[in-house]
Amino acid sequence: MLDHSTLATRLQGMLNGMPPVRAMGVTLLALDESGLRLAAPLSRNVNDKACAFGGSLAGILTLAGWGVLASALWRRGIHAEVYVAESQIQYLAPLYGDLVAEAAPPTVEALATLLERIDQRGRGSLWLDAEVRGSDGAVAARLHGRYAALRSD
Amino acid sequence: MLDHSTLATRLQGMLNGMPPVRAMGVTLLALDESGLRLAAPLSRNVNDKACAFGGSLAGILTLAGWGVLASALWRRGIHAEVYVAESQIQYLAPLYGDLVAEAAPPTVEALATLLERIDQRGRGSLWLDAEVRGSDGAVAARLHGRYAALRSD
Repeated sequence: MLDHSTLATRLQGMLNGMPPVRAMGVTLLALDESGLRLAAPLSRNVNDKACAFGGSLAGILTLAGWGVLASALWRRGIHAEVYVAESQIQYLAPLYGDLVAEAAPPTVEALATLLERIDQRGRGSLWLDAEVRGSDGAVAARLHGRYAALRSD
Repeated sequence: MLDHSTLATRLQGMLNGMPPVRAMGVTLLALDESGLRLAAPLSRNVNDKACAFGGSLAGILTLAGWGVLASALWRRGIHAEVYVAESQIQYLAPLYGDLVAEAAPPTVEALATLLERIDQRGRGSLWLDAEVRGSDGAVAARLHGRYAALRSD
């Protein structure tokens, strides 16, 4: 399996390669067994009310889920395109600081089922959770999203 | 009631005032009785697969719903902050062209109920729908979102 540092470099390169993600100023804070953490400065993602723009929260949450699944597949040598298929987002409190999104990796069982589907049918999907917390530690926004993986080799 | 042209100018000004929205290149195409239409160029909102980034689709859909409700309140002289509270987004097909999002205005009944709540309790919320269609006319992404309005005067 590829190590997390190699995966992090690859993921940050892909993030930098997407104009809207570069405009948001998204950087990878951490990628390890506990998941993926992304950050973006409030200044680039602020709305008319001096707090984080809902679209930017949706964007960084969507990316966190995407990145944690894409890197889990890369780690295992699976060549697949990962897409967000659907999501439910809750905005629980205004966020007046930088955006930090965390996504937990898929469970061992969910990932095993996905790999089996990709192997048998070339595609599959699973649900992931991501959240953004405020400086007080409370969840400011939460995503529950289904991500599809499509074998690309 | 304020006319749509005045509302459109005000709305475009607010869009331009939000850094992430300006980075997406969002422009107001139309605002009238049938709703709000926003556009953004694919070049600024493209992902690593040469199609529209899911976060940008979420962003423009969220804005379309926000704008159609904010302008409906302004039109009636209501001073209120409008926030997205929660949303469900479906990504139905990759979009390889510019992003054009349309949001229908709230129904007369839903708006009347919201105005009553704002009047009585200072706040209320309602659900709105927005969609992005591809050049073939098929829906590429769809949002069902709840927006809250909080009286600000």
